[in-house]
Amino acid sequence: MDFKSKYNGYVKAVNAALDGIVKTGAGPGAVIYDAMKYSVAAGGKRLRPVLALAVCELLKGDINDVMVFACAIELIHTYSLIHDDLPAMDDDDYRRGIPTNHKVFGEATAILAGDALLNKAYELMITHVVKNSLYTKNYAQAINVIAAGAGAEGMILGQVIDMESEGKRVSGETLEYMHRCKTGALIKAPVLAAASICGATPDEYESLGKYARNIGLAFQVKDDIMDVSGSSQQMGKPSGSDAASNKSTYATLYGAERASELLDEMIQEAVDSLKCFGDRAGFLKDLAIFIRDRDN
Amino acid sequence: MDFKSKYNGYVKAVNAALDGIVKTGAGPGAVIYDAMKYSVAAGGKRLRPVLALAVCELLKGDINDVMVFACAIELIHTYSLIHDDLPAMDDDDYRRGIPTNHKVFGEATAILAGDALLNKAYELMITHVVKNSLYTKNYAQAINVIAAGAGAEGMILGQVIDMESEGKRVSGETLEYMHRCKTGALIKAPVLAAASICGATPDEYESLGKYARNIGLAFQVKDDIMDVSGSSQQMGKPSGSDAASNKSTYATLYGAERASELLDEMIQEAVDSLKCFGDRAGFLKDLAIFIRDRDN
Repeated sequence: MDFKSKYNGYVKAVNAALDGIVKTGAGPGAVIYDAMKYSVAAGGKRLRPVLALAVCELLKGDINDVMVFACAIELIHTYSLIHDDLPAMDDDDYRRGIPTNHKVFGEATAILAGDALLNKAYELMITHVVKNSLYTKNYAQAINVIAAGAGAEGMILGQVIDMESEGKRVSGETLEYMHRCKTGALIKAPVLAAASICGATPDEYESLGKYARNIGLAFQVKDDIMDVSGSSQQMGKPSGSDAASNKSTYATLYGAERASELLDEMIQEAVDSLKCFGDRAGFLKDLAIFIRDRDN
Repeated sequence: MDFKSKYNGYVKAVNAALDGIVKTGAGPGAVIYDAMKYSVAAGGKRLRPVLALAVCELLKGDINDVMVFACAIELIHTYSLIHDDLPAMDDDDYRRGIPTNHKVFGEATAILAGDALLNKAYELMITHVVKNSLYTKNYAQAINVIAAGAGAEGMILGQVIDMESEGKRVSGETLEYMHRCKTGALIKAPVLAAASICGATPDEYESLGKYARNIGLAFQVKDDIMDVSGSSQQMGKPSGSDAASNKSTYATLYGAERASELLDEMIQEAVDSLKCFGDRAGFLKDLAIFIRDRDN
């Protein structure tokens, strides 16, 4: 099967699972379920859950089992977007081509819907553990990796650094650190969580960790490059908006050409780190290249 | 030891533990740690962690072990207050006698600090499980109970119902449901989480659940009564503010006198449900009475 078909197959499975997890409801307060579902169903690349499922397949794990953790990470990603879009944060009116959560449900409900999705992610994982009596180190470690990636030493720290860097020229070191936290941490999480659940050997775990670190940073560097190259119109924000807002990015700091070279290096390193898996890692290698070559 | 001394002893232990858990930091983005610590250190009754520790002592569990879960619940409670106080929500300038989180750190950081505390609660619990190899049903169930209480079928649902009830006269049934979700769910969580961790028998678990359900609702009913009785000035909001905002409460719906009778009944039921523990449950019984008789 070619890369695109395989990717789309994963996305379809993820969307079906998410649809069953985030349900609408009736009765007092049920608008919270509508608000949660609105943003979860809005789509997106589903990169994080796809990564988890691909690692699961590589390690011959149980897809239904890993799916729960894959979806939990997507709920965390979705909550972060809802809160990011709030007037007090990025103040965005559109996301994925439709009005942002607070534009539809109001700010208060959007804040609570984000909170609820974050909480739901953990509830989902721990309920799965209880329901199936999965009281092992592997599962606990998977949740731990996700919590670390999402928290104040991971994604949230990255968001704070991003905010305090606005309108400032930051060092290359700070920029890399910011990207690794803001985007990298929650891209690494599904890879390592799936690896843990599927019982990766220490060597496999390390190789996958190196892969994830590289594609996590590469993903954000590619975003930076797209912003200046113009293809970012498909991202839903005007091209060149980073430079206009005086935002430090790989493109503004190193120039688009050097940033592209750095991106190539990261992708090459990601691909190389999967050598030990041989041909079985074909999809993950293609996924790294997809991250480099995507136009949205 | 008298009730007050014992309560204060628990609070002191909780505050020391929280101080070690939520640390300040240096480097890019470290303001998030200041913001988290600011609200956690602002104090409060620490009712939820005290409940967990008291149940632990009743069941002869390990206090250091239960302390982690007690603190996690307090982090969740604190995040909910930070988000509640936001301009888009209750728009409060003061909390516990000091400026609210967003007044000090700005809205964006306050939103992220709340998110970070919620995430930290789960990270704290799961890290504790991993570090001490506590891969058992009891611990997973404790986390599950907390997640259920905090989420969109618990506290968050209560907040949403509260918002949509503003300026409306709601039924007694809806009001009770709202209170049980908004306040009761996260008061029940520490009792049941501690019971689970300490290996309560099914009978003990049920008795403690009945106790927790009653004090959880009673806590909010007492708040309602204090609002009209005037003693709520010590709560940091002007007395009579619920009636002025046309808010349905036990006091406005049933009258202060009937509300007090209902409160008495709940407290009596809470105390009665602890019969099976005999004198050992003295502190928890006193705590129920404290909830009824407190003036802030």
